Amino acid sequence: DDDCNDLDNIPLPPPSVNPTKVLDIDVGTPDAHVPRDPRLIRLTGVHPFNVEAPLSALFDSGFLTPPELFYVRNHGAVPEVQDYEMLDWSITVEGLVANPLTLTLRQIIEEFEQVTLPVTLVCAGNRRKEQNQIRKSQGFSWGAAGVSTSLFTGPLLASVIAAARPRRNARYLCMEGADELPNGNYGTSIRLSQVYDPNRGIMLAHKMNGELLRPDHGRPLRVVVPSMIGGRSVKWLKRIILTEGPSENWYHIYDNRVLPTMVTPEMAKKNKDWWTDERYAIYDLSVNSAIAYPAHEEKLSLETTKEEYNLKGYAYAGAGRRITRVEISLDKGRSWILSSVEYPEDLYRSVPEDATLFGGRLDVGSRDACLCWCFWSLNIPVAALSAADDIVVRAMDDSMNTQPRDTYWSVLGMMHNSWFRVAIRKEGGHLKFEHPTQPALQKGGWMERVKNEGGDLLGPNWGEKVMGQDSTTDAVVKAP
Amino acid sequence: DDDCNDLDNIPLPPPSVNPTKVLDIDVGTPDAHVPRDPRLIRLTGVHPFNVEAPLSALFDSGFLTPPELFYVRNHGAVPEVQDYEMLDWSITVEGLVANPLTLTLRQIIEEFEQVTLPVTLVCAGNRRKEQNQIRKSQGFSWGAAGVSTSLFTGPLLASVIAAARPRRNARYLCMEGADELPNGNYGTSIRLSQVYDPNRGIMLAHKMNGELLRPDHGRPLRVVVPSMIGGRSVKWLKRIILTEGPSENWYHIYDNRVLPTMVTPEMAKKNKDWWTDERYAIYDLSVNSAIAYPAHEEKLSLETTKEEYNLKGYAYAGAGRRITRVEISLDKGRSWILSSVEYPEDLYRSVPEDATLFGGRLDVGSRDACLCWCFWSLNIPVAALSAADDIVVRAMDDSMNTQPRDTYWSVLGMMHNSWFRVAIRKEGGHLKFEHPTQPALQKGGWMERVKNEGGDLLGPNWGEKVMGQDSTTDAVVKAP
Repeated sequence: DDDCNDLDNIPLPPPSVNPTKVLDIDVGTPDAHVPRDPRLIRLTGVHPFNVEAPLSALFDSGFLTPPELFYVRNHGAVPEVQDYEMLDWSITVEGLVANPLTLTLRQIIEEFEQVTLPVTLVCAGNRRKEQNQIRKSQGFSWGAAGVSTSLFTGPLLASVIAAARPRRNARYLCMEGADELPNGNYGTSIRLSQVYDPNRGIMLAHKMNGELLRPDHGRPLRVVVPSMIGGRSVKWLKRIILTEGPSENWYHIYDNRVLPTMVTPEMAKKNKDWWTDERYAIYDLSVNSAIAYPAHEEKLSLETTKEEYNLKGYAYAGAGRRITRVEISLDKGRSWILSSVEYPEDLYRSVPEDATLFGGRLDVGSRDACLCWCFWSLNIPVAALSAADDIVVRAMDDSMNTQPRDTYWSVLGMMHNSWFRVAIRKEGGHLKFEHPTQPALQKGGWMERVKNEGGDLLGPNWGEKVMGQDSTTDAVVKAP
Repeated sequence: DDDCNDLDNIPLPPPSVNPTKVLDIDVGTPDAHVPRDPRLIRLTGVHPFNVEAPLSALFDSGFLTPPELFYVRNHGAVPEVQDYEMLDWSITVEGLVANPLTLTLRQIIEEFEQVTLPVTLVCAGNRRKEQNQIRKSQGFSWGAAGVSTSLFTGPLLASVIAAARPRRNARYLCMEGADELPNGNYGTSIRLSQVYDPNRGIMLAHKMNGELLRPDHGRPLRVVVPSMIGGRSVKWLKRIILTEGPSENWYHIYDNRVLPTMVTPEMAKKNKDWWTDERYAIYDLSVNSAIAYPAHEEKLSLETTKEEYNLKGYAYAGAGRRITRVEISLDKGRSWILSSVEYPEDLYRSVPEDATLFGGRLDVGSRDACLCWCFWSLNIPVAALSAADDIVVRAMDDSMNTQPRDTYWSVLGMMHNSWFRVAIRKEGGHLKFEHPTQPALQKGGWMERVKNEGGDLLGPNWGEKVMGQDSTTDAVVKAP
């Protein structure tokens, strides 16, 4: 065993159960070979498999997500790879390189230095259900659990690319997976300069949390691009192609973009130029946060002897930026209270330089970047919650980027990061908390309620009725 | 002459006049040796010299700012350096290095490769006057012209540092200037990993726009840290010290921070911990934009035969991020119109690899980063302006960071980047445009007017009266 003794204080994977049973619901689908956890919430019907865990289950698992609760974004059938085939799985490195390569997984493990990095992946659609309540987008309805963290093991992508000797004019790294889809294999690209940036930790991975990748997560080999949207971390990796321009793969062009908010579905359909403008492609994550507790429909008795309630949740940023503060408002954003923030990722920074874990050098301390989510918490007097209409959270990153109050709506409904608001309802002797939405087609949440009550989600006060005022005819937004 | 012929399409410095006359106002101050342009607006009385150009003059100068209009942030007297002393000016590179160095400017020019880079510098206080209207901060009142651009020439800082052979435990690069201040020499630090990041273009500079640095801009040698707040680009450079931790210089600790908004001046005074938490130190710029035209108090006759008015202004982001869109709202943020954006910096990307300018290799094409501001414009029907109460602009960067609607107030009043709003007043046969503020103690702007009218700048509609509603007693912000 290669694990060294100085690793006592680092976060290690929580107990995990690798499902062995194929669920009834998956029998008869192309994924009938994939055992799964029944707790996962299906966002696009039965197939393809797009899921998130219940938010409380995800949050309770802590810093490292058990693989069976890790969110999944699949575009089609999961490639089936038998145990005996795994080490012979091969990828190519081609395009603008002096030395085109074909590498088996065996070579990737044996011929390149292996590193182990904690990385949080986030779907660009995380929190999209909220956007869909404001105006239906073309994307399906993620809740706030489209985010998960794992210890990934494999070589840094830069070392593999170096072996192929890129030509000077290579500027982009295109990737393709083995998944066969209606519009070809899934593929996308990132900038080559980012692959070379040691701070970014862009890697290939064949293990998560010390075990082999599970089928839904790219078995036997995937790309892991920390700090970027999950859509850039190609699973079931088959090809790497260095190019002068960005990927022309259908999924690169027509997915993972935030078109300008004025672009309607009709405009987007008519004019391809909206889709090929690289400025609207999403790469790095933006600052985001959510409230995990109070949970949706949690009740707090006002006859409690507790004087304080412990609010808590998660936050993350992109491009290696650190979350520098998380703030809570109980008065709709007029004033903000600073929460405390824990960074479990920092515990890995002080291990010895040569420490290894799961067969990879634990390579966190060499970079300043934050590649993982963090956790915030704040004790609030129960009396203050009782006097408030809502709890609002926003985070800021080390580039002083902060979450906007209002939603940036776009055709695909992505990168939703406006303030996360939990409404407080007074019912008899207790407070009842309402999250904005529930994932997929599940009912519930204050956004749906406000709409049903005729409120305007784009108006002030999130469309909630205010004492003595009719929220549906608000003068402020109907200027003369 | 080293300039090559393929540089026909790149932006070159505009006509510039190096002032030769010391202004009457500077006679009798420690800066009596510094000739200056009388158009600059003094923000802190006569001395020290802290100035910005009138916004229209700055904007009309175009992409590269004439040095005499480049904003200045001085903490004290400007060091006087005679022509014959310049090449013997020396700096040290010390601290955690195997090979401590003393280098003269002559050596810095002769022994290291010289590059020329277009870089926009921005004061962390840009747009602070708006924050000061909401609640007085401890900083003086910049308008929206605390931003300027120049072609800087000198070696990349990484090459100078490499010659000193940094030790492994060096993580920060501290810098000190020659300016002697009440709390010691001005000094600050950045992360060493950023100095090594080729995308960031961090450099030493002895020329701006092809001429020697002028006294107010660090003559004879300064640091230029693109994409970060100006406060990290130390002028009159004397010392570089590699360290394990961030700078302990008084000006690093007590300046250039965005403390949490709940921290009052009293809290900040009482507890030093607020100042030493690196999470609140500002490094990279955040996304920002402003409207240059219509200018403040510009009038537009409604009897014009023009059917459209050309709105225009600037935008910038930090950490090399590109501005990916600029949007205009005429209905207080309910809907947004996409403007067009010009990136003059991109014109430098296609010059031959070995092209030089002003004695330095024009090293723009090798990096993907955007180190400069860009310009947006949008034609709007005059009828639409006439029907609106205001023009609001916001920009987004390539990490999908966008400007918030509301101001993030903090003790030092920095990094103000909320939507830039120009109010439209109807007066007889014309529209009159009002910017939010005027710099320094100058009167004018809608923020001052709203306050004088008893409006609440933190309320909806920026405290402006709305037809049939009293803005001073708005129900929305006074929840039960």
